[in-house]
Amino acid sequence: MSEREIYEATPRSTVNRLKQRAVYDHETVHAIIDSAPVLHVSFNPTWYDDDPFPTILPMLGCTGSYTPADASETSPPAVYLHGHSASRLMKLPSNPLDDSLPGVPVCVAATHIDGLVLALTPFNHSCNYRSAIVHGWAVPVTDYDEKMYALTLITDSMVPSRWSHTRIPPTEVEMKSTGVIRVNIVSASAKIRAHTAGDDAKDLADTEMRRRVWAGVVPMNVVYGEPVPTAGNLVEEVPRYIEEWRERENDGNVKYSREVASRNAPKK
Amino acid sequence: MSEREIYEATPRSTVNRLKQRAVYDHETVHAIIDSAPVLHVSFNPTWYDDDPFPTILPMLGCTGSYTPADASETSPPAVYLHGHSASRLMKLPSNPLDDSLPGVPVCVAATHIDGLVLALTPFNHSCNYRSAIVHGWAVPVTDYDEKMYALTLITDSMVPSRWSHTRIPPTEVEMKSTGVIRVNIVSASAKIRAHTAGDDAKDLADTEMRRRVWAGVVPMNVVYGEPVPTAGNLVEEVPRYIEEWRERENDGNVKYSREVASRNAPKK
Repeated sequence: MSEREIYEATPRSTVNRLKQRAVYDHETVHAIIDSAPVLHVSFNPTWYDDDPFPTILPMLGCTGSYTPADASETSPPAVYLHGHSASRLMKLPSNPLDDSLPGVPVCVAATHIDGLVLALTPFNHSCNYRSAIVHGWAVPVTDYDEKMYALTLITDSMVPSRWSHTRIPPTEVEMKSTGVIRVNIVSASAKIRAHTAGDDAKDLADTEMRRRVWAGVVPMNVVYGEPVPTAGNLVEEVPRYIEEWRERENDGNVKYSREVASRNAPKK
Repeated sequence: MSEREIYEATPRSTVNRLKQRAVYDHETVHAIIDSAPVLHVSFNPTWYDDDPFPTILPMLGCTGSYTPADASETSPPAVYLHGHSASRLMKLPSNPLDDSLPGVPVCVAATHIDGLVLALTPFNHSCNYRSAIVHGWAVPVTDYDEKMYALTLITDSMVPSRWSHTRIPPTEVEMKSTGVIRVNIVSASAKIRAHTAGDDAKDLADTEMRRRVWAGVVPMNVVYGEPVPTAGNLVEEVPRYIEEWRERENDGNVKYSREVASRNAPKK
């Protein structure tokens, strides 16, 4: 990217508390979403049966920008989600209350927990985390080429280049029973905490108490274990593209969570 | 528990797809919530400004059942959430559209990803996971004793017995600026996938392809790294209650993700 692109800080996406933790640039928001092993998608199934409760589905997905071959401009980035065609979100009408709306209004959340922050007081306990929230209009992807683009992207976001190492192309039945949703982003933001525990001056002055209470951060990260083949797997060794990805992820995750655990708090 | 308690399978909570993965018993649902390092809470801030989008907040919390000293019966289990008194969910009126409702309608999701399921075809790719969803009425906890109960519970759900190893009791200012929400559970369910990759008979018959495509599960789990003290920490060694918990969690997480990776699929 030659220029740093930023999501506009709307009332919906503006971080209200601890503003120094907020970030709005595309790169940071997209990286948090694309490295999350699962996304949480919230929507209102209300429209079916007057139920007042929103619901949440854990889904697989990632950001992408699909530009049809005949288009003159690049499409704006969107979140692509993957699910069975029979799942609830896939079957939602765009909005029976108001079909002038351009899709189902959804919220997509991606959260990484990078450490438990154990301060001197319970009140100052916290987590190190990277969190992204997107609000947007969910629409089903029906165009064959865009669907193929999204399925490739989502599969490769699990393990890079996995798509091309599987039995492809998908059959017609597989394409029909797989649903893909594009969330056209309306607003987005991210919030990051990445530093050591912070305590109040009064508690820090109490050395007797500080000799009793351990204060610091327990780093946390996701680890990918040794791959376990199926009983019928015929490939003798775990392929290099899997092992290299696994090593890179594990190293990166450990280093990040450990490194931020000792960082000083940013100035307020 | 002498009897196995079960959440009723309501239309809202009934798992629609892959029903063999659904579980409704209290023990399973609560264990998934209580071992999740973060909860995702969805609600509709709509009522403020006509915004059609639900939103999601990542929050810390766990299940609990608070019974006041003078009560004759045990309270039903609820989800307790913790946040700053100034955060958006804490400030929501119960429901300006209909104040006869017994709280803010929310959805709470807890998700663990236990492995990436790499099948022969992209279509059969999946994840091993444990996911719990609760729908309920969120109400602020104002009673001092219940708030203390919930804060102790949530702190100890980060690291067992952490509360008693910190500077307690909280000051009056700390109690005021910490908000606690109780979600009175209306419906709840869990969904679990815990087995190896599954492929279609047609693909399994293609041995030429199977010699090319590695099939199996990459186990995933959260690891707690070596604790990093603050610059001002005065406790020389990391306390035993932290190290023992860390070891137990790390061992358990690794074992579970690895063990389920080789399990056969349950009969449909």
